[in-house]
Amino acid sequence: MRMVVKVAVAGATGYAGGELLRLLLSHPHVEVGALTGSSSVGSRLGDVSPHLTPLADRVVEATTPEVLAGHDVVFLALPHGASAAVAEPLGPDVVVIDCGADFRLTDAGAWEQFYGSPHSGSWPYGLPELPGQRDVLAGSRRVAVPGCYPTTATLALFPAVAAGLVDGHDVVVVAASGPSGAGKSLKPHLLGAELMGSASAYGVGGVHRHTPEILQNLRVAGATAAAPTLSFTPVLVPMSRGILATCTAPLADPDLTPEAAYAAYAERLADEPFVQLLPPGQWPQTQSVLGSNVVQVQVTVDRAAGRLVAVAALDNLTKGTAGGAVQCMNLSLGLAETTGLPRVGVAP
Amino acid sequence: MRMVVKVAVAGATGYAGGELLRLLLSHPHVEVGALTGSSSVGSRLGDVSPHLTPLADRVVEATTPEVLAGHDVVFLALPHGASAAVAEPLGPDVVVIDCGADFRLTDAGAWEQFYGSPHSGSWPYGLPELPGQRDVLAGSRRVAVPGCYPTTATLALFPAVAAGLVDGHDVVVVAASGPSGAGKSLKPHLLGAELMGSASAYGVGGVHRHTPEILQNLRVAGATAAAPTLSFTPVLVPMSRGILATCTAPLADPDLTPEAAYAAYAERLADEPFVQLLPPGQWPQTQSVLGSNVVQVQVTVDRAAGRLVAVAALDNLTKGTAGGAVQCMNLSLGLAETTGLPRVGVAP
Amino acid sequence: MRMVVKVAVAGATGYAGGELLRLLLSHPHVEVGALTGSSSVGSRLGDVSPHLTPLADRVVEATTPEVLAGHDVVFLALPHGASAAVAEPLGPDVVVIDCGADFRLTDAGAWEQFYGSPHSGSWPYGLPELPGQRDVLAGSRRVAVPGCYPTTATLALFPAVAAGLVDGHDVVVVAASGPSGAGKSLKPHLLGAELMGSASAYGVGGVHRHTPEILQNLRVAGATAAAPTLSFTPVLVPMSRGILATCTAPLADPDLTPEAAYAAYAERLADEPFVQLLPPGQWPQTQSVLGSNVVQVQVTVDRAAGRLVAVAALDNLTKGTAGGAVQCMNLSLGLAETTGLPRVGVAP
Amino acid sequence: MRMVVKVAVAGATGYAGGELLRLLLSHPHVEVGALTGSSSVGSRLGDVSPHLTPLADRVVEATTPEVLAGHDVVFLALPHGASAAVAEPLGPDVVVIDCGADFRLTDAGAWEQFYGSPHSGSWPYGLPELPGQRDVLAGSRRVAVPGCYPTTATLALFPAVAAGLVDGHDVVVVAASGPSGAGKSLKPHLLGAELMGSASAYGVGGVHRHTPEILQNLRVAGATAAAPTLSFTPVLVPMSRGILATCTAPLADPDLTPEAAYAAYAERLADEPFVQLLPPGQWPQTQSVLGSNVVQVQVTVDRAAGRLVAVAALDNLTKGTAGGAVQCMNLSLGLAETTGLPRVGVAP
Repeated sequence: MRMVVKVAVAGATGYAGGELLRLLLSHPHVEVGALTGSSSVGSRLGDVSPHLTPLADRVVEATTPEVLAGHDVVFLALPHGASAAVAEPLGPDVVVIDCGADFRLTDAGAWEQFYGSPHSGSWPYGLPELPGQRDVLAGSRRVAVPGCYPTTATLALFPAVAAGLVDGHDVVVVAASGPSGAGKSLKPHLLGAELMGSASAYGVGGVHRHTPEILQNLRVAGATAAAPTLSFTPVLVPMSRGILATCTAPLADPDLTPEAAYAAYAERLADEPFVQLLPPGQWPQTQSVLGSNVVQVQVTVDRAAGRLVAVAALDNLTKGTAGGAVQCMNLSLGLAETTGLPRVGVAP
Repeated sequence: MRMVVKVAVAGATGYAGGELLRLLLSHPHVEVGALTGSSSVGSRLGDVSPHLTPLADRVVEATTPEVLAGHDVVFLALPHGASAAVAEPLGPDVVVIDCGADFRLTDAGAWEQFYGSPHSGSWPYGLPELPGQRDVLAGSRRVAVPGCYPTTATLALFPAVAAGLVDGHDVVVVAASGPSGAGKSLKPHLLGAELMGSASAYGVGGVHRHTPEILQNLRVAGATAAAPTLSFTPVLVPMSRGILATCTAPLADPDLTPEAAYAAYAERLADEPFVQLLPPGQWPQTQSVLGSNVVQVQVTVDRAAGRLVAVAALDNLTKGTAGGAVQCMNLSLGLAETTGLPRVGVAP
Repeated sequence: MRMVVKVAVAGATGYAGGELLRLLLSHPHVEVGALTGSSSVGSRLGDVSPHLTPLADRVVEATTPEVLAGHDVVFLALPHGASAAVAEPLGPDVVVIDCGADFRLTDAGAWEQFYGSPHSGSWPYGLPELPGQRDVLAGSRRVAVPGCYPTTATLALFPAVAAGLVDGHDVVVVAASGPSGAGKSLKPHLLGAELMGSASAYGVGGVHRHTPEILQNLRVAGATAAAPTLSFTPVLVPMSRGILATCTAPLADPDLTPEAAYAAYAERLADEPFVQLLPPGQWPQTQSVLGSNVVQVQVTVDRAAGRLVAVAALDNLTKGTAGGAVQCMNLSLGLAETTGLPRVGVAP
Repeated sequence: MRMVVKVAVAGATGYAGGELLRLLLSHPHVEVGALTGSSSVGSRLGDVSPHLTPLADRVVEATTPEVLAGHDVVFLALPHGASAAVAEPLGPDVVVIDCGADFRLTDAGAWEQFYGSPHSGSWPYGLPELPGQRDVLAGSRRVAVPGCYPTTATLALFPAVAAGLVDGHDVVVVAASGPSGAGKSLKPHLLGAELMGSASAYGVGGVHRHTPEILQNLRVAGATAAAPTLSFTPVLVPMSRGILATCTAPLADPDLTPEAAYAAYAERLADEPFVQLLPPGQWPQTQSVLGSNVVQVQVTVDRAAGRLVAVAALDNLTKGTAGGAVQCMNLSLGLAETTGLPRVGVAP
């Protein structure tokens, strides 16, 4: 006997929604139920997302309680601020997994500072790799899926924080990303002619909304600095998908060797099914994890600069959003955490 | 009870070999056996192909009869001319699926003209969608996997030929392709700096080796022209993977309507699991099929020009090589043809 | 004493307008005057087009007769249909060079069929390389700049037509292009995430508006077919700029040799300053002409297919639009045709 | 009367050599003389570098004293270690401008640590924007052109250092770059199929050779830290050209406002012809400076992180190498510094 859960996706026609469906279609315990949208209601899914071949003739419905009723799991891939109203009528027994930001931050002040709206509260944070977090997520009926940059930066840095190699002060993260993280927004700077052949920084100077989320994760991982600080700069580069985060932090011990840093990472990542610490000397590249739920990590020590340097690569739509969300669903439902999630990238 | 076949890949470190392994790793009836190479013998696979996470610690062996012995299926992803010598000692009971060109052409003269070497003979041609070809491939112990351009052009045109909409004379095919089809060759024109931001034609004027193979397929599909002819031009464009073939041919009936052409395609493609005829008005794009075994097809009629125009998009490494090869393995082994093959592209 | 002309650009904030300004800034006889727009009126040019460093602080004005008055030359880079109303009040002495389609076609019926609006008439056609066209353009006060695809296809094919190698029947053109030709339009399929890593056909089946324009040019070049026909398919590929057109046509003489075809091209292109016939065996690539006003051309004969094959590469914004427009301005003003126009591409 | 200098390029067939020729061809005081290479000796330049249309029929000569004799200026674009032997026989009166690393570092120990070979000495450092450096370069007969990353990072940071906003300790630079900076090397990781759609870090952990060069520049700019330190990470991204450097450093004054930082930059960059401080709020993108000699810079303050953040974008082959070299030649010859150098990028 095989368990089958019925799954709805609210916001099915965006990039995150499309990636959820790609993964759910090959999940052995999932039956794809309602697909909802807003401006695309009534459209054939194949017209909007022509890669979803098996669902091409499905029609996009409105995001209403009636349409979403009767599912075991509902994924939300909605604009920020919309999740609470959609989730509430679903009731406490339905597993609701929110790919938006609404329930990620525990600190209402940080929320209000960065999002400029009232705080909705917080749900269990869907990063199973964070120390202690698998227990929180097991059986949880509500999950806030992390942002794509926080997933990348956290998976690069948490072993160093947890092992006390760095204490969380003066962390610097610069992350190159493709534009799919920005969604299917019709903005001039997201046009292909503008992006191809170009790199640009945005959200510079501590204003990007993922900044407090990364700091929150460093605290959860055990940052001992009185006040962890982070300089975070996202950089848009010409690839559809992928994030490569370069993360550095001052060494707690100026004599830490690269070998010792590597060993600490190896110990903490040994049992992680989706975090692959590369062999010493090999550095991550986003192509290797395209379409997979794997994040590749490497670490070294720059003694002259007094900093630990960790680099992580993932696919922002897979491990960075939809794959991470399915991983959380698996934990919530008591399935093996890796069920239905690809571990091989589409390279080259 | 589940059937498990042991599969070796000769030429495992090239792009075709890597894609075979990506697909075989998620095939429910496959155990991945020996991985062989030439210049990479002794390397850890993860150093050469970092996306193959689950096989990262496997070591590349030499391509010898001893190493390849004891497998149920052996895939060959070798340079042209090398397959016969590797296949022969494997014996007639092993399924040998050759991704190279050696056994594709039935006409020794065409082989010698285009490849400049003696003809090795021909094996059953691994394009199940060609009329009658599934029966040939069922249970076959030898398969010659088609070239990536011939797969694309044939799947765009065979319904028209089979339905008598065109007779195979004066066919013109221009196909845009990413450079992964050229393999991991260290040639200056394949450098990233040369390719990014640039489109270029090559093999122009009827000299590309896939020309006689496409013509052979049109004949198999039922071309009635006394002598089918083809002007084929490949164009290199800046994307790692993908082929988009624009195929035109003179109309047998100058009054053919687009609707009638579409209906003929719909009829012939109705039961094809991997050929998706898009709804009228929607045209193929390679992104939609990235990493999947699907080919998307559309057709129309240009009455003023007197030509049928068909366009097909596929991933040259998946349906165009390794996915097609696995599809043939399924037929050879009596498995469901679609087993283990992705039908959803990694988009955007 | 140096002649200086004052030049206005109407539609200065689009891609064609920006490219005009890039070229005009290095033109030794030009003073850049009014820059006009529509939705961007009042903007600082540097905010809209940050590459135009020397004009960063200029402010975009409205496209009115008052603003455009007092210039010697006015370039129009406006949406189709808008040029006539802007040009009329400028008076007959001002040189008006229209980068839009409005005045390109001489055949009112073709215009109405493809553009679905009343015909505005026609102006001297701004392709100096067409036989006899330099005389028409010398001193002309009105110029209709060709479309980017017609420039490419015509420069690839006119020597063959003019030399009688082909007669203009059953021409097939497939042209790969970057999205900048579509302008800065906020359409989903022009988003970077959609375009990167993807190739797609559009305007298939004889419906693209550049089809009648290419046919018109073949007639001007001397096509002798009773009714020239063209199957034209544009293909979008992931590069900001560039067009690579693959053009084939049935041979008038089935025994034509590649050498004879090349010699005919060499003879007709010998004195062309911007059309570079590559040495035999070298094929065009768009990168080589990026940002330059050069078009690279190569030709061969496919005897088995009975077709001449010519390939041309250009930058759609330079030679394909703004560079061609400046070349016409030079002819109109009696300057050396090559004045101020780059002949070296930005490669790699 | 117009001054004309005869210029040779040693290493003319690489990417830096090709870019030098692109710029020299439009320089009003330059006559292009000998073009030399090594493996390409005897080749037609047009076969190797098809974008250099006006020089297509020139033949590559050997890099010998005889071939290089009789020129006023010789540019060296040679592999590291080769410059001294080529420069010596040219004599002290010839202007020699070295695009390689050999003479950049003044500290022999740093040279030996990072390059692993004996130090050749140092030449005047070709970054005119560094405080005091224009005087050094005026009339100099030897110039060491900076590395591409050091040019970018230095132009982003020197105003902050010179104004005392930061003191040079704990600087962190992460720079995204296209692969043309690596030259035309036939290495697997530089293949187009590997690079397109992928971002990867390399030279991580303080080992990249540009690290001591950036530190040297910060000292020249006035770094007051007892020992300036730098964590530098280069990241390869999928674009042919361009560097975007994100540079952060601890604030000397924790209460520094963004406005005060901007004002300090504005003051120090006011007269720089090629450094464009963007208006507040606009951030650099590499596309805007493609093919131009301009570097775009922006700065802000992240008070919460206690760091100044400066971002710079340039074209690694133009301002980052060949354009910077021509700028130095202008200074050496007493020409206006901006002569022959483009200030408008090829965008989009």
